[in-house]
Order: sequence, then structure tokens, then C-alpha cells
Amino acid sequence: MSKPKVFEKPTGVKDYLPEAVRQLRSIERNVLDCMSAWGYEQIITPTMEYYDTVGVASSTSDQKLFKLLNKRGTTLVLRSDMTAPIARVVASLLKDKTFPVRLSYHSNVFRAIEEEAGRVAEFFQTGVELVGDPSAEADAEVVALAIASLKAAGVDRFKIAIGHVGFLNGLLEEALPGDRTAQEQLKECLLSRDYVGYRDQLKGLRLQAHVQQELEDILRLRGGGEICDAALQLSVNATARKSIAHLCEIWEVLKAYGVSEHVLIDLTMIGDFSYYTGMTFEGYAADLGFPVVSGGRYDNLVEQFGRPAAATGFALKTTRILELLGAEREVQEERVLVRYTAEGRAAALAKAQELRRSGVSTVTERVEVQQLLQDESASNEDNRDSGYTRVLVYGNEGAEGGGRQ
Amino acid sequence: MSKPKVFEKPTGVKDYLPEAVRQLRSIERNVLDCMSAWGYEQIITPTMEYYDTVGVASSTSDQKLFKLLNKRGTTLVLRSDMTAPIARVVASLLKDKTFPVRLSYHSNVFRAIEEEAGRVAEFFQTGVELVGDPSAEADAEVVALAIASLKAAGVDRFKIAIGHVGFLNGLLEEALPGDRTAQEQLKECLLSRDYVGYRDQLKGLRLQAHVQQELEDILRLRGGGEICDAALQLSVNATARKSIAHLCEIWEVLKAYGVSEHVLIDLTMIGDFSYYTGMTFEGYAADLGFPVVSGGRYDNLVEQFGRPAAATGFALKTTRILELLGAEREVQEERVLVRYTAEGRAAALAKAQELRRSGVSTVTERVEVQQLLQDESASNEDNRDSGYTRVLVYGNEGAEGGGRQ
Repeated sequence: MSKPKVFEKPTGVKDYLPEAVRQLRSIERNVLDCMSAWGYEQIITPTMEYYDTVGVASSTSDQKLFKLLNKRGTTLVLRSDMTAPIARVVASLLKDKTFPVRLSYHSNVFRAIEEEAGRVAEFFQTGVELVGDPSAEADAEVVALAIASLKAAGVDRFKIAIGHVGFLNGLLEEALPGDRTAQEQLKECLLSRDYVGYRDQLKGLRLQAHVQQELEDILRLRGGGEICDAALQLSVNATARKSIAHLCEIWEVLKAYGVSEHVLIDLTMIGDFSYYTGMTFEGYAADLGFPVVSGGRYDNLVEQFGRPAAATGFALKTTRILELLGAEREVQEERVLVRYTAEGRAAALAKAQELRRSGVSTVTERVEVQQLLQDESASNEDNRDSGYTRVLVYGNEGAEGGGRQ
Repeated sequence: MSKPKVFEKPTGVKDYLPEAVRQLRSIERNVLDCMSAWGYEQIITPTMEYYDTVGVASSTSDQKLFKLLNKRGTTLVLRSDMTAPIARVVASLLKDKTFPVRLSYHSNVFRAIEEEAGRVAEFFQTGVELVGDPSAEADAEVVALAIASLKAAGVDRFKIAIGHVGFLNGLLEEALPGDRTAQEQLKECLLSRDYVGYRDQLKGLRLQAHVQQELEDILRLRGGGEICDAALQLSVNATARKSIAHLCEIWEVLKAYGVSEHVLIDLTMIGDFSYYTGMTFEGYAADLGFPVVSGGRYDNLVEQFGRPAAATGFALKTTRILELLGAEREVQEERVLVRYTAEGRAAALAKAQELRRSGVSTVTERVEVQQLLQDESASNEDNRDSGYTRVLVYGNEGAEGGGRQ
């Protein structure tokens, strides 16, 4: 491998220049404020975790974890999501805190990537975890908060698809009892939304005609509350029926939140994390092929850290939302340059300080200072690149001299 | 090495719980706002950089860099400071931007640590880089901004010690011409502020009496602007004298900023980064043995990335400032719990939304919701842990029923 060139950075990571940072910071602040209003308190966890604890629990596939060794020879990982670290904290530092616990975060996460174009190795997520509440009310709360968070981020047109891993698990076990391989292959197709592949797989299984029909029918199970009724017709499996009943309850609560217009029940939905145990959801922005939020219930994860607890949550894909919204609409910003000669310095610097202080409470004001070179005249204001809304000059008339615009 | 316990995290890293995050976020926001008012625009760079570029340029000793391999087998590092990454960006993505360039950041950085108690492997820095301006005005600007930033962070009592690497280099070369080993050993003592060791080293060198006296005298070169005059008596070395002249200019500008009361000239000051080429400074808070800010001029670093440019800047040690300030003084916060039965749900959720919206513009308001279990009566409000400033109950009188306090 040849040496990287001096100006290069690693594959899959990026620099955020000031315009992008302003937009990213605005999304971050608005979304965290929204989560705070819903009672979620922010936490920060370390970038590095032990491979054997958080790394293994994170449900990111092993080859997608960034690994490194510490001085003792123990394997560390760069966190691949925030759910496992928060489960660790809830089971340790917060072990005496009464449930439900509501936590939020804004964080970068890491995924080791293949040599594919466009895949990212480091990106931002903004999310919540609601720990210690197994109810449909809790699931509905995080879905409703995901909707409020997308709006706070500035995403106006989107749809949330909600499903339940228990429904598919129950239905497939009923149709293909004990055949884990076939079940996993079918779920794999649904996860990648490869419906043609799904039908091909079904045909290859040589199922009884009515069973094949049932499994094909689930592709049409997308819509509003009526989907729950249709799904109940499809299966007598207890797990599947219990899952549907839970989804119906969530739907009722979402109606009470007044947000069901944004939600679509989609029983082919499978969360991409293996630790999901119940409801899962994904949010799609209009005209975009990838989700901008994903979440779900994970009732077995916190227990792995020593404190049994039901839990549900979501993460906004903040970096994607930033790309979706594009560069910031130009903000109204005063940008002032205060130039001075040695004689005008004290007056100029005092003026700059005065402007900086007043700027905080009114329109955004940035004030830069610059000493005039000896061969420049005090009135020579034009040889600077533009971008300043005002240029003040403190010149040779002495430190008492006022600014000239 | 035995497996880590499930709840453990790696040595030297920490979790920030909500109280600490509120304080950290408040420092971050206030300091970045201050830097923005001075014309510094924020950027974000990746956590991982190439070892051969930023890793080598960073001036962190090799064994203190966290290293990992990417899929291609190239060595990456976790950034150990933000100065080298920003130099890379200034020389690449911002290569067409006219100097001076003013950039700010708030970022975590990483240092691999020995098995020492209390050393941290990941911590936060908030800082600026002023690139493309070699003048004493630029050095004074970053010192004055460091002072403003400490005040913005809430640090009230502190002192900035300012020195110049050129003075010591010139003086030592004059006293010990060509003896690099002895020069480095003496500088090592000054860096660790081991003045006893410094005197012992001097004695061991068997210098002429007046040379030894001169080198001992620099330990007393601490004070205000008068130190510059005293220093000029000490050395005829051109580098040393030029450095002192530059420091005198900085002092004059700091007086014009009206901040010289916070500043102490200390000619034994050596910055802890090998890339410093000129003025360096450190800020100490009252009663604390470690610096809360450090900075200096580095005129050769940006050139390593392909764009020759003078530069100066500093980093606040944000994590230390957080520890210094301690837990946040309790903020006035409304914390409301809205409880409801199934019948009261719609009214309760609507009320919660109304409170969340009104909270944004007034006092901080957090609103949580909770369904009453069937065996709880609507008036049974006491079995929750405390901490709520208000509890509203929407009960069996139907969805129209109002809240009860």
C-alpha cells in the first residue's frame, strides 16, 4: 500500500465546512430541544468500548466493527451505535434510577466499510431510548417523538412504516415449522425489500398452495389500522396474533397523538438490528430511497448488561438529513471588519468588543479586526475580498478617531 | 487478559450523565458563540485520520497515538488534537480561501495512555486556529480570545502565562553552542516546571560562572511588560532578541485589548507541542495545578500539508473546565408528569403537546406522559418517585375531562 498523499483523509469519512456545520448544529439543537421537551435527558458515552461487552451486544456484524487494541492487549471497538452503550449505562451508573428512564443523545458512530462507493465509515445519529416500559404506549411515544423530531429537524414530507418482528416470526414458523434456513432467507429478502426474490424463494419451497398464497399476501399488508384486521385473518399462530394485537394498540395511541396520518402499517417491515424483539419502524422522506430514522423495541438487550428491562427507541440518521436538506438557506448575518492603524488600535479594538457584545442578543454579528499595513492608506478598503456587510476604519487621526463606514 | 465485566468501559474514558452533559453543553455553546462573535467559523473533521499524514504531523508522541488498520491495511489514528486536521483542511478543501482564515471547533481528542491513575484517553477541546497572519496582532488576538473564551465558559479567576520558544532556543544556543543534548535536557526541565532539576542540570554542565548565572536568571523572568526589557539585557543572540521584540509587540496589543491584567510574561514557558515556532501560552485557573488552555504559534505546520502559511491558535481543555466548575447549579426547570387512563388519553396527550410547545419559549419545561395501570386509581399520584413540579391526571370522566393538579 502506497503512502496516502498529505491532504488525503481515510475512505468514508468527511470534513464538514462552516456552512454544513451551521446546518448540522441547527438540526442537532432543534432535535435535542424537542426530545428534552418530551422528558428525555441527554447523555454522552465514550467513543471506544470493549469489544467483548458493547461490541458483541451492538448487533453490528463483526466485520463492520472498527477494532483496536489498548495497551493491555484488550480489544476495543469504536461504537457502532448508541443503543448498546446506553444499555450499559442504564445497567451500571443508572442502576438505581427508577424506570421508566428516558435518555437522548447526539453522537457520531462508526462502521468499517467495504471498498464501496458512497458508504460512510463515520456518521451522526440523534436519538432516544425509553427503558423500563413494555407497553404499547411506550412504543407509540417513541414513534410520535420520531415524527416530532423529524419535523424539528426541518424534514416536512415523510412517512413512517411500522411493523412487528413477532408477526413475521410467528407466521413463518407456522408456514415453515422448524425450517430456520428458509425462514431466514425469506426475512433476508424482506429486509432488503427484494420482493421479486421473496416470491422466487417462496416458489422454490414448493409449499401448499394456500400457504404460499398467505405468504405472498403479506406483501400487500400495508396501510392504516385496517391492516391489523386483515393480518388477523392470515394466522392462527399465537405469537403472530399477539404481535398484531400490540400493533393495533400502538395504532390507537398514535391516533390519540394525532400523528397517524404520517404512519403506515407495513407487516413486511423488519428492523435491521438483530436485537429487535417487537415493534420496529423506519421513516422515509419523500423522494429518498433510504430511511432517515429507524427504531424499534429491544426487550432483551439491557439484560445482557445485568439489569432486565424492556426498552424501545429510535435514531435519526442525522448525516442523511443534513444531505437531504442541503446547504443552509443563507442566514441574515452581520459581518463586520474593523481595520486600524497602530494609532487607532485601542479605539478599534474597543469598538470591536462593543459590537461583539451587542451582537449576541440581536442579529448574528461576527466582528473581525485587522491592522492596516504601513503602505496601505486608511481609506483603502477595497483590496479585501468581499463578504463584509460593514467595514470600519480607525485611522491616523489618533486613537480617539471614530469609525468611518 | 481476562474478559472485561459486562458493565465495564475501557480505562481512561467516561460516561457523562445528564447533569454533566447540561454543563458541558452550556460551556460548549457559550464558548463557540464567543468565538463566532470574533469571526471564527466552526468546522468538524473526522475522528480517524491517516497515520502518515495527520498522525505524524500532530506532534503527539508515537506511543500516545491510538492506531488501527482500515480494510486496505493502511494505518489510521484517532485524532490527538485538532490543529493538524485543520491544517490539512486549510491546505486542501479551503486552499482557495483568502488568508487570514479563522476557524473554531469543539471536539473530542484521544491519547493512548499508560496504566496511570487519572489519565484520560478521550477528552474534549474547544479552540480556534488563525491561519495566514504572521503578525503580533494575530498572536495577541488569540490570547485575548482565549481570555474571552475562559470567561464565556464561566472560569472567573485565571492567569495566562505567555512566552516564546525563540527566546529560549536563542539563549540556550548562545550559552551551549551546538550542544543539543544539554539544551533539550534543560528545556525538558522547564516544560515539566522542574526548577530544582533545571538548576541541578546547570551545575552539572560546568559552565562559566556568568553564563550559569544568566541561565539561572531566566527563572526570575516572570512579570509584566518590564520583563521584556530585562530579557533584552540577558542575550545578544539575534533569535532571542527578535523573539523578545515580538513578545513586546504582543504585550502592547494586549494592553489595547484591555486584558493585560490577566497576562504574565514568563520566559520559561515552553509549549508542549513540538510544532510551536513562536509565542506560546498557557492559562491556569486559580488553585489548579494544570492548565485550562494552551496555545501558540506554529508557522511550519500548514506547509507540511502543501500550503505555506503562518498560523496561531489555542485549545481550551474543556473537560478540565467542566471538572473545575463542578456540577451545574440547579436550573429552574418545570418537570411535568401527565398521567391518564385509556379514556383520558387523547385529552392528556393533547395537553402534553400544548405544554411542550409553550415550554420552548419560556422556562425550561419537560413533559412526560404515563398511562395509569388498571389497578391504580386516577388520584393515586404518590407512588411515583418525586422530582416532578406538577402532576396532571386525565381520568375516567372521559376524554373531555380536564387535568387535575
